[in-house]
Amino acid sequence: MNEKLLLRTKNFPAWYQSVVKHAQLAEQSDTQGAMVILPYGFALWENIKSTLDQQIKATGHQNVYFPLLIPMHYFAKEADHIAGFAKECAVVTHYRLTTDPTTQKLTVDPKAKLENPLIVRPTSETIIWHHFRKWIQSYRDLPLLTNQWANVVRWEMRTRPFLRTSEFLWQEGHTAHATSVAAQAEALKMLHLYHDFIKDYLAIPVILGEKTCNEQFAGAQTTYTLEALMQDGKALQIGTSHFLGQNFAKAFDVKFTDEKGHLTHVWGSSWGLTTRLLGALIMVHGDDHGLVLPPKIAPIQVVIIPIYKKGTPPQTLQQTAQQLTNQLKQAGIKVHLDLRDHHQPGWKFNEYEKKGVPLRIAIGPRDLANNSVELTRRDTMTKTTLPIDTHMATTLQKTLDTIQTTLYEKACAFQAANTTPVDDMATFQKVLKEKGGFISAHWDGTTATELAIKAATQATIRCIPFTPSATAGKCLYSGKSSAKPVLFARAY
Amino acid sequence: MNEKLLLRTKNFPAWYQSVVKHAQLAEQSDTQGAMVILPYGFALWENIKSTLDQQIKATGHQNVYFPLLIPMHYFAKEADHIAGFAKECAVVTHYRLTTDPTTQKLTVDPKAKLENPLIVRPTSETIIWHHFRKWIQSYRDLPLLTNQWANVVRWEMRTRPFLRTSEFLWQEGHTAHATSVAAQAEALKMLHLYHDFIKDYLAIPVILGEKTCNEQFAGAQTTYTLEALMQDGKALQIGTSHFLGQNFAKAFDVKFTDEKGHLTHVWGSSWGLTTRLLGALIMVHGDDHGLVLPPKIAPIQVVIIPIYKKGTPPQTLQQTAQQLTNQLKQAGIKVHLDLRDHHQPGWKFNEYEKKGVPLRIAIGPRDLANNSVELTRRDTMTKTTLPIDTHMATTLQKTLDTIQTTLYEKACAFQAANTTPVDDMATFQKVLKEKGGFISAHWDGTTATELAIKAATQATIRCIPFTPSATAGKCLYSGKSSAKPVLFARAY
Repeated sequence: MNEKLLLRTKNFPAWYQSVVKHAQLAEQSDTQGAMVILPYGFALWENIKSTLDQQIKATGHQNVYFPLLIPMHYFAKEADHIAGFAKECAVVTHYRLTTDPTTQKLTVDPKAKLENPLIVRPTSETIIWHHFRKWIQSYRDLPLLTNQWANVVRWEMRTRPFLRTSEFLWQEGHTAHATSVAAQAEALKMLHLYHDFIKDYLAIPVILGEKTCNEQFAGAQTTYTLEALMQDGKALQIGTSHFLGQNFAKAFDVKFTDEKGHLTHVWGSSWGLTTRLLGALIMVHGDDHGLVLPPKIAPIQVVIIPIYKKGTPPQTLQQTAQQLTNQLKQAGIKVHLDLRDHHQPGWKFNEYEKKGVPLRIAIGPRDLANNSVELTRRDTMTKTTLPIDTHMATTLQKTLDTIQTTLYEKACAFQAANTTPVDDMATFQKVLKEKGGFISAHWDGTTATELAIKAATQATIRCIPFTPSATAGKCLYSGKSSAKPVLFARAY
Repeated sequence: MNEKLLLRTKNFPAWYQSVVKHAQLAEQSDTQGAMVILPYGFALWENIKSTLDQQIKATGHQNVYFPLLIPMHYFAKEADHIAGFAKECAVVTHYRLTTDPTTQKLTVDPKAKLENPLIVRPTSETIIWHHFRKWIQSYRDLPLLTNQWANVVRWEMRTRPFLRTSEFLWQEGHTAHATSVAAQAEALKMLHLYHDFIKDYLAIPVILGEKTCNEQFAGAQTTYTLEALMQDGKALQIGTSHFLGQNFAKAFDVKFTDEKGHLTHVWGSSWGLTTRLLGALIMVHGDDHGLVLPPKIAPIQVVIIPIYKKGTPPQTLQQTAQQLTNQLKQAGIKVHLDLRDHHQPGWKFNEYEKKGVPLRIAIGPRDLANNSVELTRRDTMTKTTLPIDTHMATTLQKTLDTIQTTLYEKACAFQAANTTPVDDMATFQKVLKEKGGFISAHWDGTTATELAIKAATQATIRCIPFTPSATAGKCLYSGKSSAKPVLFARAY
């Protein structure tokens, strides 16, 4: 595992794969496009999950669990929804295996064919709205605020770990409201909750906005999105929140009696964040040495590595290292003491660099004599000497906070430097080719123009940003008038 | 939802279903045998999960995530394993839906047939051991201690919420070791971890032992089990832990180089606890008023209900109720203040009784005048008057602890009273018919006798208990000699 990482600048996609491998985040499986999430990758996902789960619950949502397998006919009820998902559904058609009498090999039992096929959930709107019908009668049952942590399957031919996998993990929120205004407010509230979480914990700046009709979620009336910029200049849709209007309420006949006794369809929202966030972390913060993790989400915040020649560490060294570990643990810092004796310190340094551990403490006999340790910041690779005293935990916590801020500021600066306002197609092409990044340009609001630009440049409209102060202009493609610029980019 | 519950003694299975419904734990879905876990039921599962997860991690296991869909040919590699699971596998055979050109209806796309079918995991030994092969080379890689929280699907025709569902949630631990002794020790260690958790948190006494060959997990060399007794006198297998020997290591060719440089197959274990635990909670502690929850696992430990005539509660009453709530919350008690104004207090009392909330505080104008509240214990339904003062949280915490202990002692007493030593078949039949419960009897150790007793009585050998002080005797069926008695029961 101690081979050299590939360089970011040379081949970004290959670098990405090599970080996934060397940081021991995930590995390929034999199941088309599905990955195995390894302990370190899963610990990262668990940190994301536990914080986000608390925040979602704090806003009044309750967790539920719905069946994995959804009757196929549920999907037929919402026309747009099925149009969007039909092409990528894993379908369960049989419920038994048997031994082929001729070949004596294991085979699907033809006698155990399901009368009604079941779909492995690609998303749960259909089955959840089917049950919402039973749960909602009166305005007193609203708002109905649910959330589910689950695995979903979308059959994908071209996959990449975390970014696009045939199975992924996510949370999917599903809510029902008495009014259109309330459902829209909910969709926006969760979009902002996502924004704050991604900013505060993952140190990733995102642009908030609305998707064009063409890029909407299948079955939504409005799709809100969070778009982030990767270091190769491509955009990544990092999460979405949908105002569903009354689409699913009508498809599944979910009505309520309002305070005046009138029977009306409810209004809905749904929103989700996925294991794709791990892909974003790699591509926003990673460098040529591997992963760089924001301290607030890192499974290990500080690693302590004793320095000694092969064999058992000197007793005093091991004791001091253990005392330090306990001291930091008590201060609430996630610390790991690496006492493995079959790897050299240099090998270990390299391993934790690849894993993006924010701070490394090296302590050898000479440090011990000076009553100090060598501290290395992963993000800047700078080294300092730190005295061993009672202030240590405080200093380290401050440094962790600084790293968290620095990573965010660096990512913001990158995003700003790589967002280019453009007025004409020639410049658009030139910027895309030479610089990449977000391009802010006017668009006439038609799907025809959107698709023509995409065909010519491979760039898509990432979102119509929430920019209240935007000025009007002319579409860079058609010359028609436009109320405000939108954000283009090539995207994952 | 405020209909009367059915009585336990009249019809236990119907009572069970009615508790699941009235306590709002789960509801049926249209997916054959799969349930929807409702917010209250899921909160209960989350409490179980978070505690158990900490305990599993504290013993050095790391969480991972493996694909849901397993290539069918993996299953063919371990003969016993596939023999056990072939009959209940949900099989994915297609990856796309389309519109039937004739009927215009949504249908499975015949052109999107998978060359190699995928099985929705019924358990993950096969796919995990496939990857263990890549992870294990040297003795330094052992022990390999992993755990996964996942959903699994086993096609069942006769289902019952929590007890037997076609999809359920669980954790599945999978480990590899250098020696047989180490793998066996691991299987037993996790069995004891389960025992302590189930005793300390769920207040359920269990009998630990070994399964007979006939009742073993498909692919295990030894299956250890935790057996609990339900109030209807039937046994429930509450969890299992398996010593896998080298079965999966050989099937998936997982070898390691030991310290002397020899290449050998590793040894394995696997172990799991499922959402079935919720079924056990209902059937061990529930009564004619509904669920009764052990405080340590209850989503709500104390509910506060203000008493007033319809309309808005008097301001001082609401203020005091809120202050109490805050006070208890600060003391770490899970408290819920029910301020809903469209239900009468009596309706609320009934609802929280059904939900098994351990303590209820009622506070009305008269209580306010006396500076006290009315406290009701759910397990005994006894009422006491409690002064409103700074000791309140301490008193309540003590009462919660008492309830926890009382529930466990009551369940132990029930188990002891319903465990009958029996020496002959006539008494065996009589006890089974009139009393039920565990029957401790001698058995000659053969599968033939085991099956003959089962055919005659519907009772199975639940386990060969770990009872070091047991005495030898004669098999109640064959009269042959037996080293120690085993535990029989009719079971879920």
